[in-house]
Amino acid sequence: MSRLIPHSQIAEIGAALFVACGASEREAQTATDALVQSSLMGHDSHGVMRIPEYIGHIDEGSLKPGTPVEVKPTGPTTAEVDCSYGFGAVGGEQAIRTGIEIAGQQRTCCVITRRCNHVGRLGAYVQMAADAGMIALATCNSPIYGHFVLPFGGREGRLATNPIAYGVPTGGDPIVSDFSTSVAPEGKIRFHRNEGKSVPEGWIQDADGKPTTDPNGFYGPPRGGILPLGGAAGHKGFALGLLVEILGSALAGVSSQDTEVFGNRVCFIVIDPSSFTPLDRFRALMDETVSYMKSSPPTAGVEEVLVPGELEFRTRRTRLEEGIPIDDTTWDAIHKQATRWKVTI
Amino acid sequence: MSRLIPHSQIAEIGAALFVACGASEREAQTATDALVQSSLMGHDSHGVMRIPEYIGHIDEGSLKPGTPVEVKPTGPTTAEVDCSYGFGAVGGEQAIRTGIEIAGQQRTCCVITRRCNHVGRLGAYVQMAADAGMIALATCNSPIYGHFVLPFGGREGRLATNPIAYGVPTGGDPIVSDFSTSVAPEGKIRFHRNEGKSVPEGWIQDADGKPTTDPNGFYGPPRGGILPLGGAAGHKGFALGLLVEILGSALAGVSSQDTEVFGNRVCFIVIDPSSFTPLDRFRALMDETVSYMKSSPPTAGVEEVLVPGELEFRTRRTRLEEGIPIDDTTWDAIHKQATRWKVTI
Repeated sequence: MSRLIPHSQIAEIGAALFVACGASEREAQTATDALVQSSLMGHDSHGVMRIPEYIGHIDEGSLKPGTPVEVKPTGPTTAEVDCSYGFGAVGGEQAIRTGIEIAGQQRTCCVITRRCNHVGRLGAYVQMAADAGMIALATCNSPIYGHFVLPFGGREGRLATNPIAYGVPTGGDPIVSDFSTSVAPEGKIRFHRNEGKSVPEGWIQDADGKPTTDPNGFYGPPRGGILPLGGAAGHKGFALGLLVEILGSALAGVSSQDTEVFGNRVCFIVIDPSSFTPLDRFRALMDETVSYMKSSPPTAGVEEVLVPGELEFRTRRTRLEEGIPIDDTTWDAIHKQATRWKVTI
Repeated sequence: MSRLIPHSQIAEIGAALFVACGASEREAQTATDALVQSSLMGHDSHGVMRIPEYIGHIDEGSLKPGTPVEVKPTGPTTAEVDCSYGFGAVGGEQAIRTGIEIAGQQRTCCVITRRCNHVGRLGAYVQMAADAGMIALATCNSPIYGHFVLPFGGREGRLATNPIAYGVPTGGDPIVSDFSTSVAPEGKIRFHRNEGKSVPEGWIQDADGKPTTDPNGFYGPPRGGILPLGGAAGHKGFALGLLVEILGSALAGVSSQDTEVFGNRVCFIVIDPSSFTPLDRFRALMDETVSYMKSSPPTAGVEEVLVPGELEFRTRRTRLEEGIPIDDTTWDAIHKQATRWKVTI
């Protein structure tokens, strides 16, 4: 069961809860907005269901509200953002804002994060850059304990689901692409297991390296692995996942096998398109590009060709009007925290 | 039938032929070396078989040896390289050298090309950057007449096979990844048709949007399309192909539907890892990363997990010793040109 809650109401509850847990008003707002925006875009797994989860992390001490986010320039066009294990969205937003600022002056830049908690929907950051007229690429990796994804041809995981995102301005909604470099994220496999269902072919292998559709074959023990994007051309998905790992680990001077770091490591590359083409002209060409893609007649059973982000912006418009669907488990958990912290719902 | 020819012999013949066709010694050497290196790495489709093909382009007037390559800075960290429709490898090499130089000073950069002929193996350029201690990303698109690749859910092609490449330095051979964002390149489909064989499932659709394994279903007329990388998750491959299209077209101020431009449009993003981590430490971490990936035990039928570029560097070592295999058609075409231009083989 689920109910529709207006996004503004959830934003208020979330912010009040985070403030009660020690966050500043601004932090609480940024962290809640990031989750609400994810839910509005239809990415519920990175949305308001994380409000009680984050409070759990605060309780455990792995998420430290109120810690300072420090921007350290490392060169004329590069910076590290030390997020001090505060809210991932607070550090992540500071990192992309830094990137947008450097690219505004220098035209290109690269910004990485350190000590960043769960950064949430990677697409949100490239979307901010696109809203500022920039092209942005983003990658996000995770430490060794999330290495569920197999290198092509292997049978022990060596990578996390390592998403890649990019954002590009147009005359209307920006292009926002955000996807894992594995064939499916781990959460979807867990969902199938919880429902007692098989997963589609080509998603997972068991510990012996045999293809299976049984989620328990993946979870083990012993644990199997999730296949990289691409099927028979899985060397391509593996190459993408490896790039994400390199930009998150080696570039930051951290070993892929480090067992002490936690959270996400993010890399943003921002390019100012106006360094090559006036922004108005660029936007007009992007509108043309979008129309050209969408002019491809759809195959049977497909309504229309969609560009990356299009479905999410549609969902956002619907949910802004109708509210965000919140499942029972999440709603109960939020209520419990509200009672605990004396926050009115 | 094919024979093994020492790479130095082919390099001499190729350079002599290109000089005979009007190239300077230096241009001829760069263009020939690029093709010989591709063949050494096992990428024969981008290798010495192109020597007679390029001479055909010179005859037609689309490839203009002797034209100047002009580097135009467009901002503190960006540049356009106008290749004036000379040899693609000459313009491409100038573009990546420009990128390496800017990144050496500014730590990040973005360089695009204009009027660039067939640029060849994209991996060659990111490899040059990695050899110079840089991380490089490269994309390459093609004009509308090569738009064989379908947007996800569509049945008319809107993208070329749009490869993405990246190179990363290690303590040994660099990581060099280079792959098309479609499930397969067009050349492989042509190869299957020429051999009278079916292509694997999941590669192509006919003009009605129906999956087929018959290459003629793709070629038509009416023409079908090549599927984007990813199978059921083909929205990911489409997103990657679209990114390549954007960086090649809109960023350069060119419409995706322009019918007058030809050749490849390349975008290089170069990042100096030493802006974040000392290069020695970065290389050591990369060696660790490679070992970690390769420590995943292989599945049945797979000898070992390979990292991107590993197979190519092995092929290179073999072919440096044993020679490059040259098929009859290519060898005859080279002989014909040698006779025509009075070049001794």
